[in-house]
Amino acid sequence: MARRYVDLTWPELAVAVERGAGVILPVGAIEQHGPHLPLDTDSYLAEAFAIAAAARHDLVVCPMIPFGYRSRPLSGGGPGFPGTLSLSGATLVTVLGEIIRGLVGQGFRRLIVYSWHMENQNFVYEATWTALERCPDAKAVVLEAPFADLSAASMSALYGSDFPGWPAEHASILETSLMLYLCPERVRMERAVDDSVAFAPPYDVIPPRSDMTTKSGVMARASLGTVAKGEIAFAEIRDHLCRTVEFEFPELSATDEDAIG
Amino acid sequence: MARRYVDLTWPELAVAVERGAGVILPVGAIEQHGPHLPLDTDSYLAEAFAIAAAARHDLVVCPMIPFGYRSRPLSGGGPGFPGTLSLSGATLVTVLGEIIRGLVGQGFRRLIVYSWHMENQNFVYEATWTALERCPDAKAVVLEAPFADLSAASMSALYGSDFPGWPAEHASILETSLMLYLCPERVRMERAVDDSVAFAPPYDVIPPRSDMTTKSGVMARASLGTVAKGEIAFAEIRDHLCRTVEFEFPELSATDEDAIG
Amino acid sequence: MARRYVDLTWPELAVAVERGAGVILPVGAIEQHGPHLPLDTDSYLAEAFAIAAAARHDLVVCPMIPFGYRSRPLSGGGPGFPGTLSLSGATLVTVLGEIIRGLVGQGFRRLIVYSWHMENQNFVYEATWTALERCPDAKAVVLEAPFADLSAASMSALYGSDFPGWPAEHASILETSLMLYLCPERVRMERAVDDSVAFAPPYDVIPPRSDMTTKSGVMARASLGTVAKGEIAFAEIRDHLCRTVEFEFPELSATDEDAIG
Amino acid sequence: MARRYVDLTWPELAVAVERGAGVILPVGAIEQHGPHLPLDTDSYLAEAFAIAAAARHDLVVCPMIPFGYRSRPLSGGGPGFPGTLSLSGATLVTVLGEIIRGLVGQGFRRLIVYSWHMENQNFVYEATWTALERCPDAKAVVLEAPFADLSAASMSALYGSDFPGWPAEHASILETSLMLYLCPERVRMERAVDDSVAFAPPYDVIPPRSDMTTKSGVMARASLGTVAKGEIAFAEIRDHLCRTVEFEFPELSATDEDAIG
Amino acid sequence: MARRYVDLTWPELAVAVERGAGVILPVGAIEQHGPHLPLDTDSYLAEAFAIAAAARHDLVVCPMIPFGYRSRPLSGGGPGFPGTLSLSGATLVTVLGEIIRGLVGQGFRRLIVYSWHMENQNFVYEATWTALERCPDAKAVVLEAPFADLSAASMSALYGSDFPGWPAEHASILETSLMLYLCPERVRMERAVDDSVAFAPPYDVIPPRSDMTTKSGVMARASLGTVAKGEIAFAEIRDHLCRTVEFEFPELSATDEDAIG
Amino acid sequence: MARRYVDLTWPELAVAVERGAGVILPVGAIEQHGPHLPLDTDSYLAEAFAIAAAARHDLVVCPMIPFGYRSRPLSGGGPGFPGTLSLSGATLVTVLGEIIRGLVGQGFRRLIVYSWHMENQNFVYEATWTALERCPDAKAVVLEAPFADLSAASMSALYGSDFPGWPAEHASILETSLMLYLCPERVRMERAVDDSVAFAPPYDVIPPRSDMTTKSGVMARASLGTVAKGEIAFAEIRDHLCRTVEFEFPELSATDEDAIG
Repeated sequence: MARRYVDLTWPELAVAVERGAGVILPVGAIEQHGPHLPLDTDSYLAEAFAIAAAARHDLVVCPMIPFGYRSRPLSGGGPGFPGTLSLSGATLVTVLGEIIRGLVGQGFRRLIVYSWHMENQNFVYEATWTALERCPDAKAVVLEAPFADLSAASMSALYGSDFPGWPAEHASILETSLMLYLCPERVRMERAVDDSVAFAPPYDVIPPRSDMTTKSGVMARASLGTVAKGEIAFAEIRDHLCRTVEFEFPELSATDEDAIG
Repeated sequence: MARRYVDLTWPELAVAVERGAGVILPVGAIEQHGPHLPLDTDSYLAEAFAIAAAARHDLVVCPMIPFGYRSRPLSGGGPGFPGTLSLSGATLVTVLGEIIRGLVGQGFRRLIVYSWHMENQNFVYEATWTALERCPDAKAVVLEAPFADLSAASMSALYGSDFPGWPAEHASILETSLMLYLCPERVRMERAVDDSVAFAPPYDVIPPRSDMTTKSGVMARASLGTVAKGEIAFAEIRDHLCRTVEFEFPELSATDEDAIG
Repeated sequence: MARRYVDLTWPELAVAVERGAGVILPVGAIEQHGPHLPLDTDSYLAEAFAIAAAARHDLVVCPMIPFGYRSRPLSGGGPGFPGTLSLSGATLVTVLGEIIRGLVGQGFRRLIVYSWHMENQNFVYEATWTALERCPDAKAVVLEAPFADLSAASMSALYGSDFPGWPAEHASILETSLMLYLCPERVRMERAVDDSVAFAPPYDVIPPRSDMTTKSGVMARASLGTVAKGEIAFAEIRDHLCRTVEFEFPELSATDEDAIG
Repeated sequence: MARRYVDLTWPELAVAVERGAGVILPVGAIEQHGPHLPLDTDSYLAEAFAIAAAARHDLVVCPMIPFGYRSRPLSGGGPGFPGTLSLSGATLVTVLGEIIRGLVGQGFRRLIVYSWHMENQNFVYEATWTALERCPDAKAVVLEAPFADLSAASMSALYGSDFPGWPAEHASILETSLMLYLCPERVRMERAVDDSVAFAPPYDVIPPRSDMTTKSGVMARASLGTVAKGEIAFAEIRDHLCRTVEFEFPELSATDEDAIG
Repeated sequence: MARRYVDLTWPELAVAVERGAGVILPVGAIEQHGPHLPLDTDSYLAEAFAIAAAARHDLVVCPMIPFGYRSRPLSGGGPGFPGTLSLSGATLVTVLGEIIRGLVGQGFRRLIVYSWHMENQNFVYEATWTALERCPDAKAVVLEAPFADLSAASMSALYGSDFPGWPAEHASILETSLMLYLCPERVRMERAVDDSVAFAPPYDVIPPRSDMTTKSGVMARASLGTVAKGEIAFAEIRDHLCRTVEFEFPELSATDEDAIG
Repeated sequence: MARRYVDLTWPELAVAVERGAGVILPVGAIEQHGPHLPLDTDSYLAEAFAIAAAARHDLVVCPMIPFGYRSRPLSGGGPGFPGTLSLSGATLVTVLGEIIRGLVGQGFRRLIVYSWHMENQNFVYEATWTALERCPDAKAVVLEAPFADLSAASMSALYGSDFPGWPAEHASILETSLMLYLCPERVRMERAVDDSVAFAPPYDVIPPRSDMTTKSGVMARASLGTVAKGEIAFAEIRDHLCRTVEFEFPELSATDEDAIG
């Protein structure tokens, strides 16, 4: 059943808007994810969770902006890696802002902006804030770090007692596991490596120090990613998103799924 | 075989760049395409031709910017249709420019910018021009209207003697046929209609006159789209693109396909 | 009789606004036009037609923006020619937009934007669109290619059976003839040449290929320009503009010319 | 003899650049100038002096940007007058900057920016400064208030002992006299009035106080303008400009005028 | 008694807004001021007068933007001096504009923008104008050259018969005296020098001529600055500001000072 | 001893640059900090730590940009509080970028950007990154959350076992204690309150939910702030900054303090 904006015809979209459907806008990045994960891992995951939420709620999945803000060395390897392809902060804010204003102009009044890329933080918020300033009857929920709220049980299942922190988790257990679970054919698991930065200070250096990132682009332990961990994490992150939708937009939680179609 | 930028890992992308591979950047639009075609028809077609070219030449298909410039009434129905979701001209130029500069920064020196949306014209050129101004050793080929050079034989096969002009062909024979050929499951052919604007002057009116567009969003004869016409048009437009690649970047036409992989 | 904005005093302008006069904004370019035509040929022609329309309708001719968008090799020789002096797309949109908003702020509600330079296309539309977005009671007519609708008879008179297409017609029969008719003292007809590009593909190359433009800047046959052809073309293009004004703004077509003064 | 940029063909412009000619860029405004002077008085005067200088020195007169910065109440009546049509500061800087960069890109290395509109101050400087930042071998002379250096004798001839200051002189003795001398047919001298603001504080108020401007738009004594005063002022201001050219660009002062042509 | 915005807590600020207090925004510059005055002389003086006015009227002193527009050679030595640190014109306009809009958003309706740096002229006005365009119930007074209206008596006391003009007075008698009076500990009076430019034309040259500024950065006679002159000038400039406040915002002149607290 | 940029004369600044001194740029915010702390608490703290570092290392303290990015409800109460006065993200990036480029233009090659305001994150990084892109011989260290690395001992001393997380700590124990230690006269400790948000989800809502912030602006326990806790925290955060300077710029750690002066 079509829930993706791009699959709809305009009359179908018009029906969704009139019905009061929400719209979820995935925001990702094109960024190196080690030798084993594809360059669109962030974008793919943002969209995957959006689609999962749209299966349970009356949400249309907006076409994703595939590009995100500049990768930073300590949380994604930085711009020095081949393949990492980013927008400046101002451009990310502008393009997201125009899309959000466009969605509001279509008639959408319930928006979820769902970003999976730490560096997008604040830019995603800024775009949504400024886009809605002149539209007081629209409401947006902005999730900038949806991976950050796993339960203690899940954290233990994924990391045991050895969680390296989210910035260092780039291209490591969580993302590898999610990709293995969602799209194993896109993962070169045989090339997954464990790696770690020589120096991870609580500040940045520009131009980046070479010891603040790794040669592989993996910053912790990609080899420990598994389908099972991916299943656990996917379910929990999806459920968290769905609970957020239910709480903030209860009217989107149709009891009769056929009514949504 | 992976040719899409987003499917590659960073070491694979690095190999492509070092080999001197080209990159093709599809630019489309999210725009109403009548009651029978999905909203991403332009983006889908831009990417489809890019992928087809990458099957024959050493090209990486860059992640598409899904959004294009503001739909205009006489060539796409204008912004009044639900579902049409556009960028301003300045933003389209900026985002494309940053992506192109990013690709050049990665090391790509052979670029093809391939746009399927009449209204993107000049903005796509401007973005490419300004992005390359400070990179004299890169070369870009810009195709802003790749549908506009069908042979007389193909035009006759598609239109007989009744070609309405490209602006009015929006969501009509060419696009319907291409989509039927490429992704029939995405076409609601049973809803295809024939329609025409009451008034098609050689100028625009702002705000748009209602008689300058149609109620359906189709502006000519969608009902005449067929798989066979799509096959003819697809082959010719793809071949035209491939001949352009061969002519402008002969070094990308590997004789031994395995060498590309 | 003064119809040019710049010739009016402010009380005269105030009277025109109160009367409900329209305003026509010519947009041209400073671009090479071969060895025989002055660099402002586009701007001059845009203004000449605007003035001709203002002789028949209640229109004030706004001061022209003399500069247009970047010349492109296949339709104007490109930026490599001495004398070609252009604005970026964003700047053209911004300056036009501020002038249009200013005119609306003055009280004008009937606007005609009249551009004579192929490369201005879309930028002129974008400027007008965004300027009018917050002024729903103003109406603008945008003509981006007013040369493109000559009758079959006129086409035959000008080109016989050998029309090279509008991009290649740059600085050739049409423009040479119009200038010979309007301002023969500004034409160095003895230097007019015939020329043609070695290669005119349906795409652009950046940086431009040298075989995509000519040495002379003429891209077809300037030598065939005549006063008689200019008279035919001027009359038809002017009449087409006037018919457009009559159709879209019938209230500007005073029957008693003295009443306009 | 053609000295205006717009009258040249591209080969003629190329010769001028190769010869090392300078270029003078007039900057004016479209602003109310009382009931007797046309709206382009500032632009007209800026261009008139530029043309006069080009008659004596090897200068090409660049097409003028007709629009200037926002009129201010105390020096031009402010934006409330019909006919006043201005650019924002940022846009004026951008458009001037692109033109200046374009001229430098053509090969010009000697530039004079000549503005006749008090409110353009600093914006004209900013545009020139930023345009030349990356072109160390070009030199620009910027005149932002060329009226401000009349000799004591001329001041006495124009004003006796009753000079109201330059801001209040808007549309009064100097400008009326210059226009009477240069283009009497453009002056409605029979409508010239004397007027004065009720309140002229050394600060501005936003939104403007009504007592800080006049009803007529004249802010001092337009009735005292004469051809004779215009002749005196024109000669002195032109000579001042020419002395500046001679001093800063002595190489542009050809002894043999025919050599310039 | 706290009048500075930054010293207030939010409930205190809320009380001031509700009471109808005005806000005064000092704008200065970081610019060389000779070998004897600190780099923030302009900013310091702007704030000092603002604080002095706030001692007499119900004004909150907004946090100052410490940076101003680009120093110009003839009025501040230009950007070649170490220590001079400036904003571009566009950025100064934008940052001031956002602060002013923010103050209006807080509820302030009476604003005074007080700039002490000649080069800020027009940019400060532009920022205030555009910020207030959509807030018709706010009123702003803009002082761009508050030093320029000393009485004849004060001018005589400071300069005798030898006033060099305000541009050349940079870092000389007025500013040295004011700083000696206000903060003698910040002045290295023993290093004060007299100096003068070799060439002070009524135009600018870009890049700057070396003879248009001085080696010391002083452009007239710093050695003649005294505490006594500073006292005279401070009192008069402060009183002038206070009279302006009284005239434009009489409601801010509480008779009972305690009521302001 | 003067270390503040604004206290130096230009020759003193020139000496510092030639000596190879570093420069530290504090970035703060004007944001409500409860009923007991002044509105510039963030700016004040950023500058206080910068000055403390400059007492130990050869650093000049750049004039602070007092304004920061938009306050967010969950970490600062949001823009709804009177007194909170912010810049947009784009403007913060631009103004910081121009200052940093200006410092590099002065000759500084060792920069520390020190921000005390969670919401400035990423904008501060973006400004520094883009400013240094064309200056490969400069090095910048960016600290965006300098409060976030207190030792376990200090955390225990400040919070016992009840740390609410950094976002909720706004205007609470850490900031209250630091202000009590540094400037007790600026703290209205008698008005300090304990408060907490009713709802602190890991996402944002726009427009903000009222239950996501507090009425007081305090979000945890301000009443527990003490001078002693401030002394502990100040010493540790200062020492952490100093160790960073020593590690990244060891050449700034003069052994002979007099040599720095």
